[in-house]
Amino acid sequence: MDKAALRHKSDSIYSFAVSEDEVEIRLLTKKDDDISKVELVCNDKYSFHECVKTLLMPKVCHDDTYDYYVRRIKLKDKRFAYVFKLTLQDDKVYYFSESGVSETYDISKGFYDFFQVSFINPLDIIKINPILQNRRFYQIFVDRFYDDKSKVNPRINISWGDKVTPKTIAGGNLRGVKQKLDYLLSLGINALYLTPIFKSYSNHKYDTIDYYQISEDFGDEEDLSSLVKELHRNDMIILLDGVFNHVSDDFFAFKDVKEKGKVSKYYHWFFIDGEKVDESKKNYETFASCPNLPRLNLNDEEVQDYIIEVAKHYVTKFNIDGFRLDVSDEIPHTFWLKFRFELKKIKKDIVLLGENWHNAHTYLNTGFEFDSIMNYAFTKEVLNYVAYEKSGAKTFKNRLISNLFRYKRNVNYNLLNLLSSHDVDRFLEDCKHNVNRYLIAYALLYTYIGVPCLYYGDEIGLDGGYDPYNRACFIWDENKWDKKINETIKSLLALHKEEKMNELEINIIEKDGVLILERFNKNKVVTLYVNLSNKVKTILPKGEIVLANNFNFKNLLHEGFLITKEVKKL
Amino acid sequence: MDKAALRHKSDSIYSFAVSEDEVEIRLLTKKDDDISKVELVCNDKYSFHECVKTLLMPKVCHDDTYDYYVRRIKLKDKRFAYVFKLTLQDDKVYYFSESGVSETYDISKGFYDFFQVSFINPLDIIKINPILQNRRFYQIFVDRFYDDKSKVNPRINISWGDKVTPKTIAGGNLRGVKQKLDYLLSLGINALYLTPIFKSYSNHKYDTIDYYQISEDFGDEEDLSSLVKELHRNDMIILLDGVFNHVSDDFFAFKDVKEKGKVSKYYHWFFIDGEKVDESKKNYETFASCPNLPRLNLNDEEVQDYIIEVAKHYVTKFNIDGFRLDVSDEIPHTFWLKFRFELKKIKKDIVLLGENWHNAHTYLNTGFEFDSIMNYAFTKEVLNYVAYEKSGAKTFKNRLISNLFRYKRNVNYNLLNLLSSHDVDRFLEDCKHNVNRYLIAYALLYTYIGVPCLYYGDEIGLDGGYDPYNRACFIWDENKWDKKINETIKSLLALHKEEKMNELEINIIEKDGVLILERFNKNKVVTLYVNLSNKVKTILPKGEIVLANNFNFKNLLHEGFLITKEVKKL
Repeated sequence: MDKAALRHKSDSIYSFAVSEDEVEIRLLTKKDDDISKVELVCNDKYSFHECVKTLLMPKVCHDDTYDYYVRRIKLKDKRFAYVFKLTLQDDKVYYFSESGVSETYDISKGFYDFFQVSFINPLDIIKINPILQNRRFYQIFVDRFYDDKSKVNPRINISWGDKVTPKTIAGGNLRGVKQKLDYLLSLGINALYLTPIFKSYSNHKYDTIDYYQISEDFGDEEDLSSLVKELHRNDMIILLDGVFNHVSDDFFAFKDVKEKGKVSKYYHWFFIDGEKVDESKKNYETFASCPNLPRLNLNDEEVQDYIIEVAKHYVTKFNIDGFRLDVSDEIPHTFWLKFRFELKKIKKDIVLLGENWHNAHTYLNTGFEFDSIMNYAFTKEVLNYVAYEKSGAKTFKNRLISNLFRYKRNVNYNLLNLLSSHDVDRFLEDCKHNVNRYLIAYALLYTYIGVPCLYYGDEIGLDGGYDPYNRACFIWDENKWDKKINETIKSLLALHKEEKMNELEINIIEKDGVLILERFNKNKVVTLYVNLSNKVKTILPKGEIVLANNFNFKNLLHEGFLITKEVKKL
Repeated sequence: MDKAALRHKSDSIYSFAVSEDEVEIRLLTKKDDDISKVELVCNDKYSFHECVKTLLMPKVCHDDTYDYYVRRIKLKDKRFAYVFKLTLQDDKVYYFSESGVSETYDISKGFYDFFQVSFINPLDIIKINPILQNRRFYQIFVDRFYDDKSKVNPRINISWGDKVTPKTIAGGNLRGVKQKLDYLLSLGINALYLTPIFKSYSNHKYDTIDYYQISEDFGDEEDLSSLVKELHRNDMIILLDGVFNHVSDDFFAFKDVKEKGKVSKYYHWFFIDGEKVDESKKNYETFASCPNLPRLNLNDEEVQDYIIEVAKHYVTKFNIDGFRLDVSDEIPHTFWLKFRFELKKIKKDIVLLGENWHNAHTYLNTGFEFDSIMNYAFTKEVLNYVAYEKSGAKTFKNRLISNLFRYKRNVNYNLLNLLSSHDVDRFLEDCKHNVNRYLIAYALLYTYIGVPCLYYGDEIGLDGGYDPYNRACFIWDENKWDKKINETIKSLLALHKEEKMNELEINIIEKDGVLILERFNKNKVVTLYVNLSNKVKTILPKGEIVLANNFNFKNLLHEGFLITKEVKKL
C-alpha cells in the first residue's frame, strides 16, 4: 500500500456535511493499489473511545492517479468520529488516522487523533444555491448583442456586423436585450449574465468610471429596471459583472490622487509607491500591466465599504440576482467574506460567482465567499479532448473526475460551465470550424453537472478568435445562421430543461474509447455517449434515443454523440 | 516517481504569503522517491505565458512518508505563477500543474492551470500574533490555586490540600491569583490562562449560569479588574476561558424554555426536538451526553449577537487580552468569523485560541477564525515518545515534522503547546513519576516552536490522573516541592526568555536514536539533545552547555537531555 498517496482530512473536501443529518466521507488511495477493502471504524464522537462499529467504504471511481472511496452516511448524533481500516490483498490490516498509518489503533486514545465531523452546524453546510437550480445561462457582451435603435448613440463607429476592433462601438444596449427576451426564451434560456454596464468609455466597460451610473452607451436606470422586471416576470434571473478589482484611471478617486498625490484623501484607496502617481514609471498596482486600470486597495476598510455599498445599491434599487465578480482571485479573501455577509443579508440567495480560472477551493469549500465560479477547468478539458485532440476519452474522464473532487459535493451543482466567453476564443474557432466536434462540446456542456452558460452567438455559429474577434456583432438574419448548430443547441437546452438535468447525480465512464456520461436519479438515467475514436467495438447504448449527432458505433464513425434516456424499473 | 504522493495546491498550506513581498512554496513528494531535482518554472503571473525562469526547490526535511521541498521567495510583482519541474534520477522530466503530472507543459496555455499566488493582499497574510510573541503561559484552575482568605467563602468544603472530588470547593479565587503574581513572575511566567470564572455553582465553572457575573466563589468585578491591571503593569497578559458551546441548565434562557416550551422566546437558542424540554428523554442537544449542559444554537443570529456582546463586555470593561474558546470545534465556523471580526475591531491583536484537539487547518490557515489552538497534537507525540515509549526518536521527529506542515509557517509560532491540563492526566502521572522523563518532556516544551503553557503545579511536581485528580490544590509549602523539577523548569523558562526562543526557526533531526531539536537564527543555534535510547555512539554536542539533565553520551546513559548554545561566526 502506498501510504504517501492516502488523502483524507477532517473538515475538508474529504469530510463534510451534505445536509443536516448526512455526511460524505471520501478517501483517495493510489489507483490500483493492493487494497482489498476500505472500512470506517466509527461511532458517535463521545462514544468512540468505548466502542466502534465498521462501515464499508465503496470504491466509486478512479482517475489515472487515485481510486476514490466515497460513502454518504446518515447520522443520528451529529458528532461523528472515525478512522479508516485498510485491508490489503494479503490480509494485512492498517489503520489511518490523523497520526498517519499504523498497524494497530488504540480507540481508547482516539480523542487525540481520530478524524471527525465535529458537529453538523446547519450554517456551515454548503448548499446548492436554489436560484441557480435548473438554470441555463446566456452571457451577453452588451455592445454586440442588439441595438433597439430607440435612441441614437452618437458614439457608434461601425455598421452592425462589420469586423470589430478594440475600439469598436457597435451600439448594443439594455433596451436591445429586453427586446430580444422572446428570442432568449424561445432558446430555452432562463438566466442572463451581462458584461459590465457601468459608466465607461470603452466598449467592454471593464474600466469603470462611475459605479453609480449606467453607461450612456447602454441606456439608463429606467432601462435596467425595466429589463430586470421583465426578466423576473418570465422567471429569469440576471447577474451583473462586478468589476471591483480595478477602475478606470478616470475614476474620481484615482483622478483626485493623480492631482493631489499623497495628500489626496483617496491615496490609500490604491497601491501607490511614492508621493504621487507617475504613469510613466507605473509606480502603482494595476490590473495586469495596464496603466489605465489602477487596482483598488480592497485591503482598506473605506474602499471595502464603498464597494459593498455599490453592490448593495444594485440589489436594493434594481433587484438584480447576483454578481459575476471580475478578477476575483486577486482581491482579498477577507473582503469577499464581508461582501458575502452584507449581500446575503439583504438577499438571502443572491448569486456570487467568481471569475476564478484556477482551483478555487478556498473560495468555494468554506461557504464564506462564493457560490460558484466560471468553470474554466471544465472548458480546458473539453478543449483538450474535443478541440485539440490532445487527450482521449480516458484522459478526459480522468481529468473531469479529478476536477469534481476539488470541491465538496454541492459546490459542483453550482459551478458555471462554459465553452466560450469574451476572454477566450470562441469554441468554434478552437474546433477549426468542425461542427460535429463543436456540437459534441455543447452536448457535454448541457449534460455535465453544474450550470451551463452559452456565450451569445455560439448558438448560431458566430465565430471569432481571441479579443476582439470573440466579440463580434450578433447576426439577426436567420438565413445566415448555421441551422445544424442552432437546432442542436436548442435541443440540448430543451433536454436540460425537460430532464431537470441539474438535479441528477453523475457518473463518468470511459469504455473502448467512448466517453459515457450518465446523469441519474432513482427513476431514470440520461446518458451521453461521445465517440471521437475509431476503435469502438462493444458499446451498446441503452434506452430511448433522445438526441443523436453523426453517431454510429457499427461503422466506427467518429466525431458524433448520442443521448439516451432510460426509465428505471422500480 | 510516485505521482499519487505529490502534494501541492495554490492558496493553501503549500503556497502562501509570509509577508508582503515573500511567499513560501512547499511540495511534498514520496520519501526517497527517484527524484533528483525539483524546480519551479515560474514568472510574474501576467508574463508567464511569454517566458519563464527556473528556481531550485531545496529538500529541507522528511518524515516517514514524504520528502519536503520548501522555498521562500522574495517577489517584485505580487502575482506569482509557477509549475513544478521534476527531474528523475534517470533524467526523465515531468511537469506538475493543476492538471496533474505531464511529460510536457505548454506555458502558452498556462493561465488555465498553473499554480499561483494570485496577489499578496496584506489583509490575507497570516501573522504571528505580536502579543503572543515570547510568552510563557501558566494555566490556572482557579479554585485550586490560592485562597487569599480576605473573604470567607461559605461553600468551601475541604481543607486546602485534601484529596479533591468532583464536588470539591477548595476556595481558590482571583484575589489569590493576584497575590501570587510575584511567585509567577519569579518563575518567568508572563501570560495567564484562567479556567472559567463566570457565575456557576460547580468548581470548574464550565457550566455557565450567567456570563455577566463573576462567580462569587472567585470574587467580583473589582477583583478581576484589579488582577488585569496588575498583570498589565507587569507586562503580562491574560486569557479568559470562553465557554460558549453550552450553558448550565440553570442559564436564564434555558430555564425559560424549560418552563414555557416552544412559546419561549429563547426556544430557538437551543436545539430542541419537540414542543418542550424533556430532560428524561434528553430531547435536546447537549455537550457530550450531559443533560445539564444544553448546547447553545450558535447558528442563530440572536444567540451569536448575545455571545459576541458577552465577549466584547470583558474586553471593553476589563481589558482582557483574549479568550481560550471551549469546545470550539463544535461551534459553527460562520460564528467564529463574526466573533473574530467584531473582537479584532475593538482590540486589534486580541488572542483567539481554540480548544481544537484535532488538525485545525480550517480554523487557522485562512486567518478568519483563530490565532492559535491548544496544541494537543504536540502533547500526544511527547506522550508517545517520552512517557509511553510507544515511539522512538525517529518516529517522534517524523510526527513533529508532519504536524508542523499542517499549518502555514506563521501559525506554528502561535500554537499553545502544553503537556498537562485540566482535561488530561498530569504529565508526571503519565511518566509514572519518572522525573527524568518528565523533565525531558518539559525541555521539549520550552525549546519547541510555539508558545509554551505550564499547568499550575506541574513546576513543583504536583501530580494527579484524570479529572478530578489533575485538579489538586497547589502546595504552597516549598519543603514539599520536588526541587529538581522546580529548578529545572525554572531554568527552562529562563532559557526560553533569554534566547527569545519563540523568534527562532526550527530544525528537527534524529541521529543514532538521539532527538536533536535546533532553534536558530543567523546569529546562533540553541540545540536540545534528548537521549532515551541505549544505542548512542557518534553524537557530539556542539557549543556551550546551557542546561543538562542526567545526560551522558559516553556511558550510553539514557533518560537525559542537554541544551547547548552556539554563536555563529558571521
